[in-house]
Amino acid sequence: MRCFAEIAYNGAPFCGWQRQPNQPSVQQRVEEALATVVRAPVPIVGAGRTDTGVHARRIWAHFDLPDSLTDLNRLAISLDRLCGPDIAVRQIRKVTPDAHARFDAVSRTYRYYVIHRKSPFSRGLAWQLPRPLDYEAMNEAAAILPETSDFTSFAKLHSDAKTNICKVTEAKWFRTEEGAFFQIRANRFLRNMVRAVVGTLVEVGRGRLDLNGFRGVVEARNRCAAGESVPAHGLYLWDVEYPPEIFLPE
Amino acid sequence: MRCFAEIAYNGAPFCGWQRQPNQPSVQQRVEEALATVVRAPVPIVGAGRTDTGVHARRIWAHFDLPDSLTDLNRLAISLDRLCGPDIAVRQIRKVTPDAHARFDAVSRTYRYYVIHRKSPFSRGLAWQLPRPLDYEAMNEAAAILPETSDFTSFAKLHSDAKTNICKVTEAKWFRTEEGAFFQIRANRFLRNMVRAVVGTLVEVGRGRLDLNGFRGVVEARNRCAAGESVPAHGLYLWDVEYPPEIFLPE
Repeated sequence: MRCFAEIAYNGAPFCGWQRQPNQPSVQQRVEEALATVVRAPVPIVGAGRTDTGVHARRIWAHFDLPDSLTDLNRLAISLDRLCGPDIAVRQIRKVTPDAHARFDAVSRTYRYYVIHRKSPFSRGLAWQLPRPLDYEAMNEAAAILPETSDFTSFAKLHSDAKTNICKVTEAKWFRTEEGAFFQIRANRFLRNMVRAVVGTLVEVGRGRLDLNGFRGVVEARNRCAAGESVPAHGLYLWDVEYPPEIFLPE
Repeated sequence: MRCFAEIAYNGAPFCGWQRQPNQPSVQQRVEEALATVVRAPVPIVGAGRTDTGVHARRIWAHFDLPDSLTDLNRLAISLDRLCGPDIAVRQIRKVTPDAHARFDAVSRTYRYYVIHRKSPFSRGLAWQLPRPLDYEAMNEAAAILPETSDFTSFAKLHSDAKTNICKVTEAKWFRTEEGAFFQIRANRFLRNMVRAVVGTLVEVGRGRLDLNGFRGVVEARNRCAAGESVPAHGLYLWDVEYPPEIFLPE
């Protein structure tokens, strides 16, 4: 029986989603919890591989369970308890036998949070930038992204991705009480792409790059043209969407 | 020159607002920062004395500065930098010479946050209670509080307070995405009062105490009648209000 688990995590203590030798990863922690409950090793596949320190408000992972396990609510509660305070398992749902958390995702949404003053309650949860940014200019520049298809300028060099083509359907800054967040949705993301896009938009917000300059960066298809990547702790994998028909009734 | 500083803090690493021997307090940390900037000891008086682990979204403290210090914005920025990540100094304002952060406060507002599921992003910032509560019943009971004047049932035993009379002007639960918060405003609060009130309302929300039972607790004027105090880390001193005329133009 194939299942999807909805998971949230604070990325601070982890080397990222994916298992690494001698470092704590989200995948390892969830797989260990699953093995404890199921009493057998259960490999899981996540919707994406977040980098060290990146958070996830909602990510899905798939795995196969023995058909004898019928109470998925109880399993989710047990897993949630075993995963420690930094990982929450929200629910487990039965899916079609070949459903794949990564390949079946229709879109992914990321958010990047910026705060403009010290916040004793948001430590490690947003990037603190003392000076305000010109969010209007940043949104004018961000509007170029949905019209762009080749994101080579924001791709990690020497990456093993076969193509740098992405379809961005939303890219916008929203103001909050203490700062702002950038929301970007696309069918796929290249490694490090969101943090490089945000870093370049921050250059626009600081007045160091104008709209044409930003367009030039995008069109250069050269990572060296873009701004520096922003820190991991402001970034959240916010949501992953699937075709509704892959979810089965229990 | 008398000044008020607006301060926010995460209570987790502190023994509370007030200085204690051999324990880190918010007062000590702010006084040390002030002494560094002013190059002389500057005692401060806070609007209230929060207990160990209790947070403050907004508290004010008063102190006297040499008249030669004219740039209060710059002073606030220096203090904010010196206070570390858990204490934020938002602003410093000039006030009338005899203004008193504690005695001139017209009202104080506290909030108590409850969440009903694990939240990897709210660790230490809300009380996690797995089962939902009957917030409608809790609000019916809370409505008794503004009609009450004697809060002996929610006062710490052997306290040195001269009277247990408080005028509560708001007492209500509000639902949030992950749980709820209780907001209570009064002219004054007794030590431990909010946590005892919340603990007793939670008994109502669990169905262990009905409306008449809650009324009986209030009318008993006996701390032993009330429920257990809830943990400190869900509690925030949310706001303190003063007559606007104490604030002077710079």
